[in-house]
Amino acid sequence: MSDMRERVVVTEVGMRDGLQSIARTMPTESKRRWIDAAYAAGMRHMEVASFVPARLLPQMADADEVIAHALGYRDLIVTALVPNLKGAQRALECGVHRIVAPISVSTAHSLANVRKTPAEMIDAFAAMREAIDSAPGSSTRRVELIAGLSTVFGCTLQGAVPYEDIAAIARDALHAGADVIALGDTTGEATPRQVGEIIEIVRGAAGDKLRSLHLHDTRGLALANTLIGLQHGIREFDASLAGLGGCPHAPGATGNVNTEDLVFMLESMGYETGIDLTRLIASRAVLADALPGEPLYGYLARAGLPKQFAASRQIESSPSSCSQVLQ
Amino acid sequence: MSDMRERVVVTEVGMRDGLQSIARTMPTESKRRWIDAAYAAGMRHMEVASFVPARLLPQMADADEVIAHALGYRDLIVTALVPNLKGAQRALECGVHRIVAPISVSTAHSLANVRKTPAEMIDAFAAMREAIDSAPGSSTRRVELIAGLSTVFGCTLQGAVPYEDIAAIARDALHAGADVIALGDTTGEATPRQVGEIIEIVRGAAGDKLRSLHLHDTRGLALANTLIGLQHGIREFDASLAGLGGCPHAPGATGNVNTEDLVFMLESMGYETGIDLTRLIASRAVLADALPGEPLYGYLARAGLPKQFAASRQIESSPSSCSQVLQ
Repeated sequence: MSDMRERVVVTEVGMRDGLQSIARTMPTESKRRWIDAAYAAGMRHMEVASFVPARLLPQMADADEVIAHALGYRDLIVTALVPNLKGAQRALECGVHRIVAPISVSTAHSLANVRKTPAEMIDAFAAMREAIDSAPGSSTRRVELIAGLSTVFGCTLQGAVPYEDIAAIARDALHAGADVIALGDTTGEATPRQVGEIIEIVRGAAGDKLRSLHLHDTRGLALANTLIGLQHGIREFDASLAGLGGCPHAPGATGNVNTEDLVFMLESMGYETGIDLTRLIASRAVLADALPGEPLYGYLARAGLPKQFAASRQIESSPSSCSQVLQ
Repeated sequence: MSDMRERVVVTEVGMRDGLQSIARTMPTESKRRWIDAAYAAGMRHMEVASFVPARLLPQMADADEVIAHALGYRDLIVTALVPNLKGAQRALECGVHRIVAPISVSTAHSLANVRKTPAEMIDAFAAMREAIDSAPGSSTRRVELIAGLSTVFGCTLQGAVPYEDIAAIARDALHAGADVIALGDTTGEATPRQVGEIIEIVRGAAGDKLRSLHLHDTRGLALANTLIGLQHGIREFDASLAGLGGCPHAPGATGNVNTEDLVFMLESMGYETGIDLTRLIASRAVLADALPGEPLYGYLARAGLPKQFAASRQIESSPSSCSQVLQ
């Protein structure tokens, strides 16, 4: 592989979105081991925690410790999710590089999730911007503020979300100081044509500040949707190792797009992710050890790397063969 | 939905590829019920059997009876797979509309699968063409002969398959009388960029005789690959209800692309499949009844139709909701 391959950033969000979506709490030491294993596989962007009251999300009570560990890797970009100003202040104190604040486009979801309307979330977002810009050291080390637009592709509460609402919220978020707009398929309803249309709508409002997609694989379309994102110029994607997650309140929901499968697709298409797939697959052992019985998803981990892919990179492929399939 | 939507043909191949890939044999009566349920859901193309010696594939021993049942539906296009001239003759006697003959591009796979080289399979294919054209009634009712190019996207035995070999086999198949060229990802190794490249290579050799894709979902890329096929003009896709299949000789392999998930993606993108998703999902009960304990795959069946999709067609959606996901 030459160095001419185009770079795509994959952010591992399993330590945040994956872990917050399962019932039990992963011990801090296991989170550290997960970060270590992901880093060893080449992952350089991780969303490792959220600052949500521990009574609501006990899974994230150790956010400070987990972030401190991640920051031990000097070239690792560390992100935290925050729902409000107080969370942003805590994240800043911890020294994260990126703060993502979710802003629901659906009012019904926004009220259910953070008890604020989208407009109130925009106000809170502007306050976060101010907190970032007035934080000690902000003149030399700029923390990125990401508007994580959620329920963009549909809402289980309100149904379809009008495109004009999405564009309006994107504009408002930029006006309130967003460095980056990310589009989140919170409810796993995104479909390929719609993804392309919405990217173009939001790009019209936000230009190249629209940078990343946060997809769930609820209906098996996360990789197809990723493909459309790539075709429409997106080069940053969130993902969870082993597709960890789902939603305790939605029996059919699944987690984020699977990191291993996403990286395989990207690498197979010639994109450079910097991630070693063999090590990435091996890192699932951390989850298996720390969360026994928790379902771990993923096609690649089950099937192995194809012989031709492995050969092109001189790594070990799946030993399986199948000579009896007729077509 | 208007009548202006572009048509995409989905062929249910679970009765052939799905059933031949699992260890046990589905009773003939259950196969009839499956055909009935698929027809009731709007499916009008089915590959219902193969003519392979019963000692090799006992699952297909009742091919004649199953085809006779399918032919009871006057507007159902009935396909059978045949590995050789004798199979083609039996399929003709049964009155199928389409015969698909697999031709491996990989010599290693071809020898393992049908004990013939690709060149020998082309000779057999030419003989099938002759049998079709000289069959009684052939002047008034033309049976379509489909060259099912297999191991096109990679071979577990030989690894990568050179693009020039694929184009050469496509040309040879056309020369031998193929009405249609179909590309099969026998081993589940296809990746999106490669799918686009290979379609263009084969179209250069076969023009609009290149018509369909037969994808397996071994590495979770079947829908992304379908999307690329659509973008490159393909409008026919094979699929298996509940993703039935896999390969008894390859522990990691999975079956064909899941029919329900494929139809959902197509319909969500505005294509017209003629298939009712609610009835299609309900038809999985036939498999659950006839093959207890057999794994049934599929995202849509688990998550349900999104509220916005259901609303657009006034059908029942999944009752699940999820208000606690932060992004």
